[in-house]
Amino acid sequence: MIVLLTDFGRSEYVGVMKGVIYGIAPDAKIVDLCHSISAQSVIEASWILKSNYRYFPKGAAFCCVVDPGVGTERRALAVKTHDYYFVAPDNGLLWETVREQEIIAIGRVPVPADASSTFHGRDVFAPAAARIELGLFDELGPDEEGMEKLELRQDGREGMVVRVDRFGNIVTNLPRQDKDRYSVVIGGKELAMSYYPTYCAAQEDELFLIEGSSGTLEISLRNASAGDRLNVAAGTRIIIS
Amino acid sequence: MIVLLTDFGRSEYVGVMKGVIYGIAPDAKIVDLCHSISAQSVIEASWILKSNYRYFPKGAAFCCVVDPGVGTERRALAVKTHDYYFVAPDNGLLWETVREQEIIAIGRVPVPADASSTFHGRDVFAPAAARIELGLFDELGPDEEGMEKLELRQDGREGMVVRVDRFGNIVTNLPRQDKDRYSVVIGGKELAMSYYPTYCAAQEDELFLIEGSSGTLEISLRNASAGDRLNVAAGTRIIIS
Amino acid sequence: MIVLLTDFGRSEYVGVMKGVIYGIAPDAKIVDLCHSISAQSVIEASWILKSNYRYFPKGAAFCCVVDPGVGTERRALAVKTHDYYFVAPDNGLLWETVREQEIIAIGRVPVPADASSTFHGRDVFAPAAARIELGLFDELGPDEEGMEKLELRQDGREGMVVRVDRFGNIVTNLPRQDKDRYSVVIGGKELAMSYYPTYCAAQEDELFLIEGSSGTLEISLRNASAGDRLNVAAGTRIIIS
Repeated sequence: MIVLLTDFGRSEYVGVMKGVIYGIAPDAKIVDLCHSISAQSVIEASWILKSNYRYFPKGAAFCCVVDPGVGTERRALAVKTHDYYFVAPDNGLLWETVREQEIIAIGRVPVPADASSTFHGRDVFAPAAARIELGLFDELGPDEEGMEKLELRQDGREGMVVRVDRFGNIVTNLPRQDKDRYSVVIGGKELAMSYYPTYCAAQEDELFLIEGSSGTLEISLRNASAGDRLNVAAGTRIIIS
Repeated sequence: MIVLLTDFGRSEYVGVMKGVIYGIAPDAKIVDLCHSISAQSVIEASWILKSNYRYFPKGAAFCCVVDPGVGTERRALAVKTHDYYFVAPDNGLLWETVREQEIIAIGRVPVPADASSTFHGRDVFAPAAARIELGLFDELGPDEEGMEKLELRQDGREGMVVRVDRFGNIVTNLPRQDKDRYSVVIGGKELAMSYYPTYCAAQEDELFLIEGSSGTLEISLRNASAGDRLNVAAGTRIIIS
Repeated sequence: MIVLLTDFGRSEYVGVMKGVIYGIAPDAKIVDLCHSISAQSVIEASWILKSNYRYFPKGAAFCCVVDPGVGTERRALAVKTHDYYFVAPDNGLLWETVREQEIIAIGRVPVPADASSTFHGRDVFAPAAARIELGLFDELGPDEEGMEKLELRQDGREGMVVRVDRFGNIVTNLPRQDKDRYSVVIGGKELAMSYYPTYCAAQEDELFLIEGSSGTLEISLRNASAGDRLNVAAGTRIIIS
């Protein structure tokens, strides 16, 4: 199984990657994890991958393309862990995900001389994932230089926005604390918010905290978008107390 | 075959549900019916399901997650009809669809103790659909309490908006009458509109009625969005004469 | 393999087409090329198909539905080339793609008497693609009238915008010239722009030219949308010198 994660949105770029994969590995099963990563947000992609890879069957190969450095000298990597494979540009996207797994090998994905300078999803990453699906991970040469690290730091009190989801929930990487009222500093504002166990417990038009499905705090508005209200994006710092 | 219908938009939530399904039923064929249901609009989901389930092969299991009550005590149901299976929160979403079929059994879908309080698509509905796909519908206990009813009422003259589609067509649940000119009351306005058999028959910038692909009246604007013009949403009342 | 290309966006119309296809050809493999063609933009669909069909395995059947004339007398065509099949309304969408291939046969797709007048994707094109997938192309009667031609003209200096992509890149059909500075006339403006080999070479907030993944010039803004800045759409004329 090949799982796709990109910031390509609803463009044809995703479909073209699938065409390339099926051309190499006709029997591949391809699954879309998410293509609505904010354009070029490696932070958001890192969070989505780290939070969700474990829901996929073992042996899956994740093909991740959020690639602000496309066409530059940045390397393309493939990582084999005990349970999964991952392919991505070496920009930190994979760091949070593979650091919590047993890494078996890190390979360097070749960039063909005739690769487009703007679309390595089609010319580099899709072919690599397809060849891994065929069992050919070992044909990749080893990567000797060490992966780029992108740590989504949080210390229980200070962390960051890692995603604004389709409902406008502001997902953070901060764990819940054992209390019902928080002070929240975000985007230059200091706000008091209640913690509720379910959406339905909140008042209309009240910003509140809830534990999201990835086990971290989210800022929500019942029946409206907290993201629009606070106008924040992945990477925004947040402090709770 | 498992058919997904949600209001998750382009988020990762759909991809994660697929990962969970493939983990339980590796050979499942998964099809996306629609994920662009307006956030939490049970009315819209009800209409889309009722209008389209019959285009899918018999035996398909529809996994429907539009779930404003997630995390509360609302039940999760699975319905087996003569030709299909349906899984959804018990909020009326299924009512219009299953009332027109022969219902064989209604089962109660269990909510695991460790289910997230915000994402039952992943923790409740996807696993239930996958187990039904494996032929395990009968392992569900029976539901004794009776389904929530949500009737999309219309009497031929007064009905409602059930969907604003991607082209801005305002889909209603009212059948066509045998005439070429209508008076339409909608969103506080009273408007005269012509009925045309095809989009091309209308003038530019003219609101008109057409029979949509579900066999009901739609308000359209040629080459523009009637939904934006009239600013209505699923649930808005409409009266024609 | 059946590849779908439509302007249906995230609507249920795509899912319903898949249901219909699986009902006729249960073992079909369906791939989404792109559904975010601008509503009714035959130019954009023509470009996307022409630029990308070759990335799909030979034998694939492309089912293309961008259909402003739905419900009128326009014909529905199926084309068999040496390597692929194509199904589409006869509005020029296929012209640029099939003219560069060896055409084996052009068939007329029947429109059933009970077809909806607004959704031939479901009632005409999906069934046709499914039957071609089953090997039944030859059951179509020949089309004697000749295809509609839509030529995306360019003479190396004057061409057109053929797509604004998900990142706001303005894709043109003009080939790169051998120089680093261009004068660009577009949308009533005359602008001087540099050519860069990669996105990273540009300054923030600078409109520049780059060779896109289809081998033609694109106008880009680093980390922002050139399409929003210049407010152009597929079909807009562009002159470079």
